[in-house]
Amino acid sequence: MLTMQDALLALTKYWTERGCMVVQPFNTEVGAGTLNPATILRVLGPEPWRVAYVEPSVRPDDARYGENPNRLQTHTQFQVVLKPDPGNPQELFLSSLEALGIDIDAHDVRFVEDNWANPATGSWGLGWEVWLDGLEITQFTYFQQAGGMTLDPVSVEITYGIERIMMALQGVSHFKDIAYAPGISYGEAFGQAEYEMSRFYLDDADVESQKRLFEEYAAEARRMLDARLPVPAHIHVLRCSHTFNVLDARGAVSTTERAKAFGRMRTLAREVAQLWAERRTELEHPLGIASLPPAVPAPAEFPVMSGTRQLLFEIGTEEMPPSEVTKTAAAVRKALEEKLAATRLGHGEVTTYATPRRVVAFVAAVQASEPDAEKVSRGPKKAAAFDAEGNLTKAALGFARGQKVEPSELHELVVDGVEYVAVTKPDPGRGAAEVLSGVLADIVSGLRSDKNMRWNDAKLSFTRPVRWLVAVLGDQVVPVSVSSLSAGRTTRVLRTAAQPTVEIASAEGYLDLLRIHGIEADPAKRRQRIVEASELLAREVNGSIDFEAESALLDQIVNLIEEPTPILGNFSADYLDLPAEILTTVMRKHQRYLPVRGASGELLPHFVAVANGSVNEAIVRNGNEGVLRARYEDAAFFWRADLQSTPEAMKKGLEKLAFEERLGSMAQRAGRIAAVALSLASVVKLSGDDLVALQRAAELAKFDLGSQMVVELTSLAGTMAREYARRSGETEAVAQALFDMELPRSAGDPVPSTVPGALLALADRFDLLAGLFAIGAKPTGSSDPFALRRAAAGVVAILREHPSLRAITLSTGLAAAAAQITAQGIEVSDAVLADAADFTVRRYEQQLIDRGDDHLQVAAVLPLAEAPAAADETLAELQRQVTNDNFANLVAVLQRARRIVPADVTASYDSTKLTEPAEVALHEAVQKVGTAPTNLADFVTATQPLVAPITTFFEEILVMAEDPDLKAARLGLLATIRDLASPVLDWQALGTSLTKEN
Amino acid sequence: MLTMQDALLALTKYWTERGCMVVQPFNTEVGAGTLNPATILRVLGPEPWRVAYVEPSVRPDDARYGENPNRLQTHTQFQVVLKPDPGNPQELFLSSLEALGIDIDAHDVRFVEDNWANPATGSWGLGWEVWLDGLEITQFTYFQQAGGMTLDPVSVEITYGIERIMMALQGVSHFKDIAYAPGISYGEAFGQAEYEMSRFYLDDADVESQKRLFEEYAAEARRMLDARLPVPAHIHVLRCSHTFNVLDARGAVSTTERAKAFGRMRTLAREVAQLWAERRTELEHPLGIASLPPAVPAPAEFPVMSGTRQLLFEIGTEEMPPSEVTKTAAAVRKALEEKLAATRLGHGEVTTYATPRRVVAFVAAVQASEPDAEKVSRGPKKAAAFDAEGNLTKAALGFARGQKVEPSELHELVVDGVEYVAVTKPDPGRGAAEVLSGVLADIVSGLRSDKNMRWNDAKLSFTRPVRWLVAVLGDQVVPVSVSSLSAGRTTRVLRTAAQPTVEIASAEGYLDLLRIHGIEADPAKRRQRIVEASELLAREVNGSIDFEAESALLDQIVNLIEEPTPILGNFSADYLDLPAEILTTVMRKHQRYLPVRGASGELLPHFVAVANGSVNEAIVRNGNEGVLRARYEDAAFFWRADLQSTPEAMKKGLEKLAFEERLGSMAQRAGRIAAVALSLASVVKLSGDDLVALQRAAELAKFDLGSQMVVELTSLAGTMAREYARRSGETEAVAQALFDMELPRSAGDPVPSTVPGALLALADRFDLLAGLFAIGAKPTGSSDPFALRRAAAGVVAILREHPSLRAITLSTGLAAAAAQITAQGIEVSDAVLADAADFTVRRYEQQLIDRGDDHLQVAAVLPLAEAPAAADETLAELQRQVTNDNFANLVAVLQRARRIVPADVTASYDSTKLTEPAEVALHEAVQKVGTAPTNLADFVTATQPLVAPITTFFEEILVMAEDPDLKAARLGLLATIRDLASPVLDWQALGTSLTKEN
Repeated sequence: MLTMQDALLALTKYWTERGCMVVQPFNTEVGAGTLNPATILRVLGPEPWRVAYVEPSVRPDDARYGENPNRLQTHTQFQVVLKPDPGNPQELFLSSLEALGIDIDAHDVRFVEDNWANPATGSWGLGWEVWLDGLEITQFTYFQQAGGMTLDPVSVEITYGIERIMMALQGVSHFKDIAYAPGISYGEAFGQAEYEMSRFYLDDADVESQKRLFEEYAAEARRMLDARLPVPAHIHVLRCSHTFNVLDARGAVSTTERAKAFGRMRTLAREVAQLWAERRTELEHPLGIASLPPAVPAPAEFPVMSGTRQLLFEIGTEEMPPSEVTKTAAAVRKALEEKLAATRLGHGEVTTYATPRRVVAFVAAVQASEPDAEKVSRGPKKAAAFDAEGNLTKAALGFARGQKVEPSELHELVVDGVEYVAVTKPDPGRGAAEVLSGVLADIVSGLRSDKNMRWNDAKLSFTRPVRWLVAVLGDQVVPVSVSSLSAGRTTRVLRTAAQPTVEIASAEGYLDLLRIHGIEADPAKRRQRIVEASELLAREVNGSIDFEAESALLDQIVNLIEEPTPILGNFSADYLDLPAEILTTVMRKHQRYLPVRGASGELLPHFVAVANGSVNEAIVRNGNEGVLRARYEDAAFFWRADLQSTPEAMKKGLEKLAFEERLGSMAQRAGRIAAVALSLASVVKLSGDDLVALQRAAELAKFDLGSQMVVELTSLAGTMAREYARRSGETEAVAQALFDMELPRSAGDPVPSTVPGALLALADRFDLLAGLFAIGAKPTGSSDPFALRRAAAGVVAILREHPSLRAITLSTGLAAAAAQITAQGIEVSDAVLADAADFTVRRYEQQLIDRGDDHLQVAAVLPLAEAPAAADETLAELQRQVTNDNFANLVAVLQRARRIVPADVTASYDSTKLTEPAEVALHEAVQKVGTAPTNLADFVTATQPLVAPITTFFEEILVMAEDPDLKAARLGLLATIRDLASPVLDWQALGTSLTKEN
Repeated sequence: MLTMQDALLALTKYWTERGCMVVQPFNTEVGAGTLNPATILRVLGPEPWRVAYVEPSVRPDDARYGENPNRLQTHTQFQVVLKPDPGNPQELFLSSLEALGIDIDAHDVRFVEDNWANPATGSWGLGWEVWLDGLEITQFTYFQQAGGMTLDPVSVEITYGIERIMMALQGVSHFKDIAYAPGISYGEAFGQAEYEMSRFYLDDADVESQKRLFEEYAAEARRMLDARLPVPAHIHVLRCSHTFNVLDARGAVSTTERAKAFGRMRTLAREVAQLWAERRTELEHPLGIASLPPAVPAPAEFPVMSGTRQLLFEIGTEEMPPSEVTKTAAAVRKALEEKLAATRLGHGEVTTYATPRRVVAFVAAVQASEPDAEKVSRGPKKAAAFDAEGNLTKAALGFARGQKVEPSELHELVVDGVEYVAVTKPDPGRGAAEVLSGVLADIVSGLRSDKNMRWNDAKLSFTRPVRWLVAVLGDQVVPVSVSSLSAGRTTRVLRTAAQPTVEIASAEGYLDLLRIHGIEADPAKRRQRIVEASELLAREVNGSIDFEAESALLDQIVNLIEEPTPILGNFSADYLDLPAEILTTVMRKHQRYLPVRGASGELLPHFVAVANGSVNEAIVRNGNEGVLRARYEDAAFFWRADLQSTPEAMKKGLEKLAFEERLGSMAQRAGRIAAVALSLASVVKLSGDDLVALQRAAELAKFDLGSQMVVELTSLAGTMAREYARRSGETEAVAQALFDMELPRSAGDPVPSTVPGALLALADRFDLLAGLFAIGAKPTGSSDPFALRRAAAGVVAILREHPSLRAITLSTGLAAAAAQITAQGIEVSDAVLADAADFTVRRYEQQLIDRGDDHLQVAAVLPLAEAPAAADETLAELQRQVTNDNFANLVAVLQRARRIVPADVTASYDSTKLTEPAEVALHEAVQKVGTAPTNLADFVTATQPLVAPITTFFEEILVMAEDPDLKAARLGLLATIRDLASPVLDWQALGTSLTKEN
């Protein structure tokens, strides 16, 4: 049995043999190996660096007294940094697993998108978590930025999670049982420290002392930066960070404090990075300058093709994120079509496929070459080209010389009836290879994704590294050079294949060749294989899979594998006691397993995991089952702990949970929410059962934030509230209201289905908006730590979908919230509330724009957005009206009236001054309309009689009469019309879009 | 080439293969691997523990900006703990060197006494520094106590100094040049951090912040102890310790602060250790209980000897400290003689020899057995044994029965003329083997040294582990069992021998057998071999060695090796520019090299190192030369740096050097010393050149404490002052005074040779005493951080050897010092000064007692010790007088006079009251003596005429007359005599020792 210490030695040996230097763990607490200066500083600048080290990583928040089988306050990372990217880091990594004795052919090892960002240090990278049979064992990142600085070259960072790997290798289910050294278990070696440090981090560290330490460290970091000493400065940033983590684990950090602390640490970390880079430059880069592979020369010769053949173009990548796989295939097809259309090369249909590791494009029936053509160049006008004698003028001769033709080759050309001299020269078609070479190169260099990265290529940038290119036309290679890559006929199959590279004889045989190696390049076929095989597996246990419901998950799975191998796994039926949401959340979100359901839709204790390639199914099943068991065990632990509590007790716990320094604890916030919800209830005159339910739900509001489950899996807030409420005997209405109040969680999420729930949800969000705006914490460009945008969008969505709550406007709601906040001694000015309301209106505007509404129409209804449901109705009516000519006329006259009347003119006038027939007629029509309805449809009907009189008025009357009284009366008349219309919508905002035809 | 990272891996591999667990370096700064809880806590309690780890050890004080070739603020230790002692840890260690590719046959690897103590944690152990060709590469310790707790079992701690080992193995002379990894030097990898952390520790760390951090950490350690969490408590103790070290490196710790901080840390560390041990007990010792080798059964049978043979008894040990080698040989001889004398076994002379690894005893001509003897038991008196009829009484019969003899076997016995009945029984002699078995076992279990330790033996205790026993009488093994050891005929020769164990055929051939294996067991012969060979080597370079001057060093060398191999080494003649004291201090104290001198006694650039065994001389020479070069380079660095400064500039530096919180900086102290010295000069009416020299020397007093050399090698204080003063143009008198003022450095050291020097030295010590007593920091039982005992002893020694300074009494001096301290605003009460004076007098008393003076005589002169030179003279005279009967009579009458006169009677009387002849005669004799001299000799002469009259007075006069006036006159007369005598000495203290014959 490989002990843990053997494993660390084996990895050390493996990586030193591959040129890594070994350093020691850092001698101050770090949360991850990344923060050791051997990574975070060394990745900066141009110097090469290869390092490997063990890093016991301290995460106070993960302290569990040693009781949780999978979580430790100090876990062991093995960290590798390769700078620059050696070009084959994934392969090197896989070999390192073999050095640990892992049979990578038997196991399902996968690279699953996982990007990394450390806001505290201004660092990010793209990469994967590496799965071993569903277990995350390693973080693999192409480090793109550190300390706010772009990395050039980028570094590959590989972080092994040693305890997890050892548990999997040794088949133990608790970290304490890992054989650490011969005869000594992990628990024996480190159990006591694990318990005691958990006590320190969770219960006993002195909060006030830690706060003082944070200040000391931050101040010293600043001093060291001023002294231009990045190394001690970095150490003090690390100490800040660890101290912050301790405070956080002690539950002593409010959201504002968090934001402030992060801000300080980020600033310091960025300055450290900059200073380090500067110092290395001053030291003239002692380790030299890293070099990247040179650019491949552009192809000089192209093979001559014959006949009509298919083109295969394959872009080989490292595992792309699932969402990018499909998008990239589409983008490549579009680019190919466009770029080919810009040539004369004849070709058939363009088809693309994609897997996580390749984008494949076929172009059918590519002709051997472009057809020949002619190119006509226009010279001087004929009149200027010939003199009186009909001889060519100097101008014409000069033109011929410039075109390198004999004067005799000039001919006449008539363009738009004007005569010129011209030259016509042959434009021979290029061979297909030459045409394609340029097109394909452009496609590779033009690849882009939502989030792009760099690797060891000097020029390319994409979602993940592009590692190889295949370009074969029929059976001929098309020479393509892009930066350091050149195309050939060699593709790569599964990394675990006996021969991982394969030669492609011809484009036409490619898909089948891949299939021979297990790979299905066509996503539709992969999906079909998964569905069919999974269905069969589910049937084995008398279950089925709701593929429709799992469609989004399936999309991901399809793009996570090249050779789908669905495997049925089981878990203990005991876990079915847990709420289904917990089980499916874990399966889908964390593991990408398909849940198996029984005849009535109930969960069965089975799942389907889709492995990649021809693995050893028993081993992979076993591994995946172990992972799920561990995750469920975690959840069950929290579930059981929570069930021993009551909603009231959990609610009590909110008092210890900081929300925001000035706004107080989460308990205070829950109290405010309850009060606001009840006040809104009176606005909408809530009564009966709904009121009873609301009153109770308000008492319990947010209680599940005090549950262990929600502390762990925050996405289950609300879900757990409903569960725990039900189990403690609350009515279904109360339970549902508590569930509803967390909705919508994100854009597109359903809004509360019940009125009590909706009122609580609104109160929650109004409190958030009013409170944070009141203390000056409104979002800025990129920073929205309290997710106020989401809160405001939620308010809008709820009000839009609950027309019965129309009496609640943004102002009503915000004012109700402000009353509670004011009662807490925090001033909330009218300006602040107006600001918050405006911020919310902007979200409404955004929702409409995103839906595709015309921005002028949207602008027109925004003044109504105080009550979004009303604005919605007006907008809908507006969209009906716009096709109506009468409406257009109405708009035109209303706009004209408004344009002419200064804003300070009020809607009153002395009608006796009006004597001209047109003005009298208008006055009478206005009198007749009286008070117009504000509902757009009714308004349009009611005001239709005004259109003609207004039109006539404008034709016949000079509003700006010399007689001031007359002028005032005329303006007052128009102002009356203006004011009649203004509550309906913002007519001016509609602009002339409706009216220009008139 | 073995890189440093290879070496760490090799050691890790070596020790894991020997059952060590590997842990990671600790994630908070530690000053040594020992402080990692994997050592300092795990050595506690009964659990077994074997661990190996790398520990980057941080010592802010060693920061040198990366400029010093041998000193780093962070150096790399490789730490091994073996608990319990495996019995062969030295051999395991030597094999580990082979695992590093070190040819231990070629090199000179030695175990040189070096004990270890960490007062901050209440920990200590005995062991060695391991030398590789003179270079200390490893600390090897039997850990005896940790955190104030005695360790049972003890642990073996092996701490490799990796940078040093690598420099030696790679043959580089600067740590930056170590090949750390392929293609990367140590400097490239860590140079920048070394520089920057040096800046932090030496120049830039914020002192006030560090002080606050110390308090935070100490408080948190206390809280964690209260929470019974030893692990986080320990971490905070470590943080205290590191923070303290940072403050120290910043020069911000005064001596009082140091003592206070150490006290706090020690208390915390002890409590941590105790708590850890308690917690492990509560956890029921998860790793089990370590077991030691069982005791060997006592021998049951003994071989029968014949003839008269020599006994060889060898006690095999690990390397004893040189000072113990000789002492142990003597102790064993004495014990053997005494214990054999208590038997009847006939034997010849007892001889002992010793080397560092063995004590050898020979007993010549041991007889085969004890002679038979008889044992007579005395019964009742004859009168009681026979009744009237001559028959045996019941008493006699009972006696016979008790003695288990027939009544007929009783016989008569006359003792002191009284007749008894008695029994005589044979007492057969035991065989030699049986006798010796007991005697030799007792000797082993009775072995003791100045400082004893435990190892893996349950009962034995000695200076170092006893590993084997040889007991051979002639050619027969004498069975001896002591605890886990039993004697045989197998001895051990050099560890590097092809066959390191050898069988001894017979006692008589033992010494020659060892010689065949290179070992000279006879220290005198070893010494002779060293002297002869070294002499020859010195002659090769036209030099010689002053063996007389180097006698103490030679004593050490003789006991550091078994097979002396003197090797001539050279160093660059450039270093001869350095003062010879520096060069010889380094050679003798640090390296045990014999300095080689030229014809006129000047140092030559050569030395003789004495290696052990048949090493490769070229390699060993090279190694030793490298070590010396490094040390000299260090010294030269400081020397050159200092020479670029001036005494004034260095003196200025004292302002930044804290002396004591309340007593201020070292500059303030130097100022006080100068003032006190000048005030003492006026007491002794110093004038002329001496005064001029003193005035200048006082200005510069202590300046060399500001030199880099003295900061490094504190023992050179004074020496460097003289050097630097000379070189900056001061007069020789000034230079010498500055040198003198540091004398005496220890008991037995010479006192200042010049008066200005003596005055400064006195002033220095008076300031120390008055100052520290004034602030209440006088020494307690074991604690004397300011070395006040030494200071007081110095005052006494100087005053004793400088009779010309007799006008300076302890009170004068202390008062002069107090005046300066008072001027600084610190109150110095008379009681404090009296206390300090008394403390100093005690040192004088101690010096006399240590010299062997009679304690009564010492007590008699102590009242004079205010001026020790005067007391000395009186004591000398007293010692002459004690053989003089007249003197005894004088003492007797003076004591009698004193005894009879109450203390409150004054020395005046009305002589007219005296009428009896004896009292009149005495009155007249007293009048005649008048004012007696206080000098003892003169006093004795002058008062001789009083002896007879006093004697007569006491015979004839009743002092306590009934007439009060008469009584008063008689007492007044005696009081006059009393007071006449009392300034001379304390007559009563002499007791009756002189007078009992009278």
